[in-house]
Order: sequence, then structure tokens, then C-alpha cells
Amino acid sequence: AAGEEAEELTVTVPVVRLRYGEVAEASTVALLPVCRAEEGEEGIAAAPGRCRAEGELGVMAAERGWARWVVLPGWGPVVAAGNGVAVEFVDGRVLPWRGSGGWEEAVLVVADRGRREVGAEDGYYLVGGEEEGRGKGLGVERGGKLMGKGVKEALGTVVLVVKPPREEEDDMLRDEDWD
Amino acid sequence: AAGEEAEELTVTVPVVRLRYGEVAEASTVALLPVCRAEEGEEGIAAAPGRCRAEGELGVMAAERGWARWVVLPGWGPVVAAGNGVAVEFVDGRVLPWRGSGGWEEAVLVVADRGRREVGAEDGYYLVGGEEEGRGKGLGVERGGKLMGKGVKEALGTVVLVVKPPREEEDDMLRDEDWD
Repeated sequence: AAGEEAEELTVTVPVVRLRYGEVAEASTVALLPVCRAEEGEEGIAAAPGRCRAEGELGVMAAERGWARWVVLPGWGPVVAAGNGVAVEFVDGRVLPWRGSGGWEEAVLVVADRGRREVGAEDGYYLVGGEEEGRGKGLGVERGGKLMGKGVKEALGTVVLVVKPPREEEDDMLRDEDWD
Repeated sequence: AAGEEAEELTVTVPVVRLRYGEVAEASTVALLPVCRAEEGEEGIAAAPGRCRAEGELGVMAAERGWARWVVLPGWGPVVAAGNGVAVEFVDGRVLPWRGSGGWEEAVLVVADRGRREVGAEDGYYLVGGEEEGRGKGLGVERGGKLMGKGVKEALGTVVLVVKPPREEEDDMLRDEDWD
């Protein structure tokens, strides 16, 4: 049964660790508004959409003011997100994968607020925390679990998880690390 | 006389042209609030200070919300500016240097609001435009000119001028281009 489950849980979200000094492997950067997980649904609603580069100087224009931002390399999933936001979790262990290795650390979860429908069992979604006893804090849940509870809409689809840079490079998250 | 004057006008402000993809290759980046020149002194006063990177994820935190930003490579003069702001001029010809070559283009002037004293004849300063007939729009003046008028304080010291990327690389501004 454990084997079957492991097979079923395909990793659908890329997890990347920033390298020191890396701002991109691509030729562009993305500027995303940042919410703290504690800010909850209100924070997600208040944060403006991802900044769009304007003009030849590449000035980034948001629909409204915001004070916390993160500059990420122009990775595909980030650039493709229509209405991206980055959520700052101070401890990656609250996320639904096993806390092996370097997960006792801060992580940024990038979600697309333009894709709220819970449509994939093996997708990961940004949700409010009321029912999970997290207070109003934000969390991440697997699509299958939400579907099992009849939840059809989340705050957004998780498109990327970013881990902070480290002295020793480690690999991408392995399948077995997901819960 | 022309020769003497040219010798006197040492270029004290670095002028750089961004290369395509350069921001992404930089090992550090700076996030600066952007004002349009038309926003004048009010815009300069309203724009928050440069964002500071917080924590291991490098989230950029500003003292208050703002909607227009620019991501620049972590160039020395930008990083050293205690209270940096970028001013967007839609036409570089309004700036006090000769309009040769590629200056009929947008430029970003990075100024340090923490250095308001007009202290160097050959420095360049960000000023309001009332007396120059620019309406309330911002401008850049040479220190010597301001001193000649008895102006002791400006809105900030210009630390860098950024030109947009171009297909054909051109060189740094030559001394003769300054007026």
C-alpha cells in the first residue's frame, strides 16, 4: 500500500534551492509581492499582482503599492503565473511533505491566484488555515486531500517552492519526500 | 576658454547602459523605488527608501508600500546610497549633458536622498523644477550652477545614470559629452 501511494504522489511542483549569487539562469527577473503566512487570506487578497516590466528601462509597475517583495530569476513557472504571489513560511515543516533534510528552514511558496480551482489530485494549493487549527495562517494542501473534503476552490495553485541558498548544494526534492 | 571649461568639468557620475539579461546575471540586486520626473518633489518625498533584503530568502522590505520599482544589478554606487530613489526621465535630453548619440531615450537617474547638501562643483544633484520652468517636474543640475545661485540643498546627490539596453553596445559617456 505504501508503494502504491508513493507511486500515486507524483511531484507536480518544482522545488528549487536558490544558489548564492544566483538571480537567474534565464535572462529576466520577476518581482513578486510577498505575504507572510500569518497574514492569511486577507494578505493574499491585499497583495497586488506580480509587477510587469514597462518600457525599455524595465521599470516594474504594480497595480497598487506594497512593501514586501522578492526578486526571483525568471523561472518558467513564475513567469507563467498570471497573478503570482509569494508566501513566506518561517518553517518549511508546516508544508505537506516529510521534514527530512533541510526543511527546518524558511521557504517561499509561489502561488498563482489566477488558478483557484482545485483541479488536480496531485496538485498543491494555497489555503486558509481555519479548519486546520492554524488560526488564520496560510497553508499548503494536496489537491486529493481537498477534494476528499469537497473543497473546490483554494486561494491559488502552488507553482514553485523556493528554498534559501546554502553552503552545500543539495538536490531537488526527491519523490519520497512528499507526503 | 572652451578648453579650460572642458577640463574643469570632470565627470563624477557613472553612466551605465544595461545589457540585456544583465540584471539576471548579477550576483546581488538592488530594488529601488521609482518616481517619474513629473511627480516632482512630492514624488521624491513619498517614495520609500531602498528595500533591504531580510532573512535567508532575501525578501525585500520597504518602509511603506510603493507601486513602481526597478531591479538593478548590485552596482557599488547603488548599494552605497543610503536612501536611494530612481527617477524616470522619458527623454535624456533634459539632463545637463550634450545630447549626442543615444541620449534621445529614456534614462533612470539614481539619487541618494541621504546626501542633500550641494557640496561639489562637479557633482550632479536632483532638483525640483519650479525656477527652471519645468513646472513641478524634477531635473538634474551641476553643483557649480547651483552654488552660483546660492542653492545649498538639493533633493539628493546623483550617484548613477542608467540607460536602457541596446542591440549595439556603446561605450561609457565620454568627458566631452557633459555640458
